[in-house]
Amino acid sequence: MNSPLALAEQVRCGTAVPQRRAIAKAITLLESTRTDHRAQADELLTALLPHTGQAFRLGLSGVPGVGKSTFIEALGLYLIALGHRVAVLTIDPSSSVSGGSILGDKTRMERLSVHEKAYIRPSPSSGTLGGVAEKTREAMLVCEAAGYDIVIVETVGVGQSETAVAGMTDMFVLMQLPNAGDDLQAIKKGVMELADLVAINKADLDPDAAVRAQAQITSALRLFTQHGRDRGQWMPQVLQLSALRNTGVDAFWAAVDRFRGIQAAEGRLQARRRQQALAWMWERIEAGLKQDFRQHPAVQALLPQLTVDVEAGRLPASTAARHLLAARTQAA
Amino acid sequence: MNSPLALAEQVRCGTAVPQRRAIAKAITLLESTRTDHRAQADELLTALLPHTGQAFRLGLSGVPGVGKSTFIEALGLYLIALGHRVAVLTIDPSSSVSGGSILGDKTRMERLSVHEKAYIRPSPSSGTLGGVAEKTREAMLVCEAAGYDIVIVETVGVGQSETAVAGMTDMFVLMQLPNAGDDLQAIKKGVMELADLVAINKADLDPDAAVRAQAQITSALRLFTQHGRDRGQWMPQVLQLSALRNTGVDAFWAAVDRFRGIQAAEGRLQARRRQQALAWMWERIEAGLKQDFRQHPAVQALLPQLTVDVEAGRLPASTAARHLLAARTQAA
Repeated sequence: MNSPLALAEQVRCGTAVPQRRAIAKAITLLESTRTDHRAQADELLTALLPHTGQAFRLGLSGVPGVGKSTFIEALGLYLIALGHRVAVLTIDPSSSVSGGSILGDKTRMERLSVHEKAYIRPSPSSGTLGGVAEKTREAMLVCEAAGYDIVIVETVGVGQSETAVAGMTDMFVLMQLPNAGDDLQAIKKGVMELADLVAINKADLDPDAAVRAQAQITSALRLFTQHGRDRGQWMPQVLQLSALRNTGVDAFWAAVDRFRGIQAAEGRLQARRRQQALAWMWERIEAGLKQDFRQHPAVQALLPQLTVDVEAGRLPASTAARHLLAARTQAA
Repeated sequence: MNSPLALAEQVRCGTAVPQRRAIAKAITLLESTRTDHRAQADELLTALLPHTGQAFRLGLSGVPGVGKSTFIEALGLYLIALGHRVAVLTIDPSSSVSGGSILGDKTRMERLSVHEKAYIRPSPSSGTLGGVAEKTREAMLVCEAAGYDIVIVETVGVGQSETAVAGMTDMFVLMQLPNAGDDLQAIKKGVMELADLVAINKADLDPDAAVRAQAQITSALRLFTQHGRDRGQWMPQVLQLSALRNTGVDAFWAAVDRFRGIQAAEGRLQARRRQQALAWMWERIEAGLKQDFRQHPAVQALLPQLTVDVEAGRLPASTAARHLLAARTQAA
């Protein structure tokens, strides 16, 4: 393995195949769980960091079957034609269970995956959601340092991964099928409120349903999202598109551009990123503290019985918490 | 101060004025920040716990001016007429700033506050939201052990206190004014999804607007809440009422009873409480860990500069988190 600084140089200034290899090596280093690799990874990241932040970070979520891959392929090729370089990263919350990512499967995006101006990386295949999100966040920085100016982070609309994706991107898009209304249970709690934009895909399959869904979601967004605060002049929008027929991609990107312009003009883009970075730092600190806590011998000795007692209503939850915290301190 | 066990006995078996005094003493003990009091408080709580859990716990939130007090007074008197004993507790997230609770002001509920079958307790007036919520949760147990079979926990619809209230009650009700639609920015992110029931108060002031609001919110709830999972057969409902004219209170309580029946029949009420107790234990553990972390000398020495570096984009957030966690461990 090259030194972290040499690798950073290759990521930034390499071209074509050598650069792709350097990016892959860098991300592999970041994903390693070996302790000595972690120190090198931190060195690499710190070297790359000044060269990041120029890209636009687009988050995208939707249930399986909504057509994310087809849409990302169409969008990616459209953006490349406009002169952009596009990186696609994936967070698959199930990958740690299945041991591999089906989402990041490059064969899903046949044309984009072989394009020299695109870089596609599947989800890290092990670890907690927090760990997977951390690796993806770091991989995003590598891609930015390598000059990809549009980074798309996709996730599947099950589990908590949407919050993680919205927490690392400049704009969060939720893809929906046209059958809105009673059948929309698939939208997880809290996810709709993350959406800066809702895209109704496969609108051509049932145009009437798509129109109804657009009206319903628009009305619901008005009730559920706090405009005038988080997003400035931007009011979350609902668009129709058909990735398969390649319609709506230009309107989609026009909306993204409008959002980006408004946010940048109001200084919200930078504010959102600062806030995300701090929130991320604390998220990792809390995960680390909790892990240390759970591994403490005194806690491991007490936790099972106290959990049973709290669940059974024999012990107040706050008393149990105090016992556990005290046990850890006294035994330290 | 009596012994915790004697106090528990007075809370449970006292009558009239002596019992009220015991309740007040018990809650004051629970709210004390003195370390020796905390041990007594834990003893008191553990003694009371077997005698709790029989009450129905109703959470209620709404923005200032929505008419919560007037409604709670009407509801409380209605329930007392049905033979219930009613306790009203308040979580005011601003009380730690203002140094006192305006929400719990007994003069807001003139008739209920002097009724022998009602007990009203204002918000604890100091501490973080987590601390205030903990005290309220414990006060709720005291009231239950004293035989109050309906406990209403109210909060004002600003801040994060709705999540805390929903996390300690069997049913969460959101009160709204009839001017739904574009003006509903006041609904905080994630709050609508907590609602098992939405009550549109002051419906008589603008009946047309109330009907529109009811339709809009019903439609939005259908899109945003995950029925069929958390709530079983219950689909969140939207009711109109007028607390001032005392209309709709019976329909409101009928809906609460229906919810309660469905939840109890499906075993969800107990499951929800077990889940709440465990979540609460972990919430307090995490708060304790974070507080210890922030007070650690090595962390205090590093945190300000690392925070600045992360905000400025000079240091990756995950690297900063690792530095801080390592500093704490090495210095221990």
